[in-house]
Amino acid sequence: MEITVDELEDLGRGCAVLGTGGGGDPQTGVLMALQAIEEHGPVRLVDLDDLPDDGLVMPCGGLGAPTVSIEKFGNGDEGRRLRDRVEQLLDRPVVALMASEIGGSNGLVPIAWAAGLGLPVVDADGMGRAFPEMQQVTMYLAGISPSPAVLTEERGNVLVLDTIGGRWIERLARAVAVEFGARASSTEYLLTAAEARTATVRGSVSLALRIGRVIREARADAVAALAAEVCGHVLVAGKIVDVERRTTGGFARGTATIDGLGDDAGRTLLIEIQNENLVAHERDRVLASVPDLITILDTETAETITTERLRYGQRVSVIAFPCDPIWRSEKGIETAGPRAFGYEFDYVPVEQLYDA
Amino acid sequence: MEITVDELEDLGRGCAVLGTGGGGDPQTGVLMALQAIEEHGPVRLVDLDDLPDDGLVMPCGGLGAPTVSIEKFGNGDEGRRLRDRVEQLLDRPVVALMASEIGGSNGLVPIAWAAGLGLPVVDADGMGRAFPEMQQVTMYLAGISPSPAVLTEERGNVLVLDTIGGRWIERLARAVAVEFGARASSTEYLLTAAEARTATVRGSVSLALRIGRVIREARADAVAALAAEVCGHVLVAGKIVDVERRTTGGFARGTATIDGLGDDAGRTLLIEIQNENLVAHERDRVLASVPDLITILDTETAETITTERLRYGQRVSVIAFPCDPIWRSEKGIETAGPRAFGYEFDYVPVEQLYDA
Repeated sequence: MEITVDELEDLGRGCAVLGTGGGGDPQTGVLMALQAIEEHGPVRLVDLDDLPDDGLVMPCGGLGAPTVSIEKFGNGDEGRRLRDRVEQLLDRPVVALMASEIGGSNGLVPIAWAAGLGLPVVDADGMGRAFPEMQQVTMYLAGISPSPAVLTEERGNVLVLDTIGGRWIERLARAVAVEFGARASSTEYLLTAAEARTATVRGSVSLALRIGRVIREARADAVAALAAEVCGHVLVAGKIVDVERRTTGGFARGTATIDGLGDDAGRTLLIEIQNENLVAHERDRVLASVPDLITILDTETAETITTERLRYGQRVSVIAFPCDPIWRSEKGIETAGPRAFGYEFDYVPVEQLYDA
Repeated sequence: MEITVDELEDLGRGCAVLGTGGGGDPQTGVLMALQAIEEHGPVRLVDLDDLPDDGLVMPCGGLGAPTVSIEKFGNGDEGRRLRDRVEQLLDRPVVALMASEIGGSNGLVPIAWAAGLGLPVVDADGMGRAFPEMQQVTMYLAGISPSPAVLTEERGNVLVLDTIGGRWIERLARAVAVEFGARASSTEYLLTAAEARTATVRGSVSLALRIGRVIREARADAVAALAAEVCGHVLVAGKIVDVERRTTGGFARGTATIDGLGDDAGRTLLIEIQNENLVAHERDRVLASVPDLITILDTETAETITTERLRYGQRVSVIAFPCDPIWRSEKGIETAGPRAFGYEFDYVPVEQLYDA
């Protein structure tokens, strides 16, 4: 299929839901993709099975604190600089772009770049959601090398990183992104189409489009319609009574407090945030945690409220839904489970927590 | 001539004096070079006129806070990794190494690497002293491109930086060096021998050797002998009464206070430090400042006391001497004069200040 300007609103809504509060401001991504498609034409969405085995797939996106991404865009050349440098380093053509993370603006940025480059985008990504750190991708779980990684930003600086492991990419790229003003564009974990078939979350662009359509078409109770589409649970419906937020070390961290309303009156949920919503708990009970997805929605419209747009008084519903099964593997939980973020409890799948 | 193990003590002493307190611990550099020359044989010291015009010269050294360099060495492979990556990037052989800065251990590190690589070292460097920031080199003044720059460290991580200007190399490399543990090895401002003939401080390795010999051979008053050799002035002889020091942002910053003794009794000098000794002042009067060289010496032996080895009670003499004329150009003063370090006064050559 082709992604035209008509698909972008649905895709943006879907990427927002999968962004679990982070991954960059989705509306910024929609505007970037809109401008690029209007200028260069639609982008082909291809299945990995339709690419040659040895075709080079370039995972890409932005990194940095999402609080900054609202105000600081790229200049549009980043995708070309990344692609050109990759082709120079590996001496072969890139056949398709892929979102490193489908969540937030990072699900849309590769579409904007692909339009400009005349390349297709693959219906897959490296997370099936958004995560704050660069080694938290399925390619890392699959043992794909993160190097060479390439970073750039709107001024034109370019860095190539050959590191001894994925965590070093994260450390160094994060330090560089902070110098760039908490925002950089990057590619890493370059891989062939054949490798990508087992090393990515497949169908995630289609899923985002489907989620967006469900929200748009829902006549009443869009939150329930969305929850049904993603096999999710509504953890609470209520009002934001406190948001604590700080931007440190290239990350946006904080906590949102939600008091229940209606049937949920008397309940208080806390959402802990590091770029993305990581943990939802009520008193001492964990209701959901990474790697499962937790998204805060406008109760009326089911539009996602990203971390940086949370405000006192908003009427919100919190949904939680299962992550891709790859994240529930031992290495997946080690990489992106609660303990990977410094929490002192074990991961339990959301459907078990909710039924408990 | 050849640099054998017999020259290393003199060279170390000379690099220490030219290091103005920084540039990395000279004794560490001597040990590295000693080990490398014992293992691989002496290093040829060549004049730039003896290299082919288009021969590629690789300026190199370490960067980071010198407080760390006492305890954290490289593993010896850094020079080879830098050289290999440079040759791969530029598709031509490196014909000689050059110290980016002659001061401190950075005057000796290229000799250790050159021994291992079987390459000569050129009798020149990019500072004629030590400076804290990477754009503070004569190649920057001469308009040589800083890119591609290559960074590495003992674990094996490698970064290539293509930046839009020298200040970006400094910002990004500094951020990366902090992640590496406040220490990295790098090459930048790669240039041909023909370019180097007018874009470097020539003869600085010979000067360091000469300074070292003068100190070693001085029977009495080695400080005076050294001052005569470098056309320097002894600003004060006294005792360290206070050292304030902190390591922030990859730099060692601080202030040393020296009370005069003997003829200088009743005087108090302050030395302001950012890796190197930047400014010497007495009450409101500046006695010497960057880009001129200020070195704190043991009064008895004329051995340099580096920033990180300053201690209460040490008997010291402070000498100041003229920098290479290239630093007294408009761009030189703009790049490495007092205002480049945030001071609110204009540069006046040390010989004028002292005679005033």
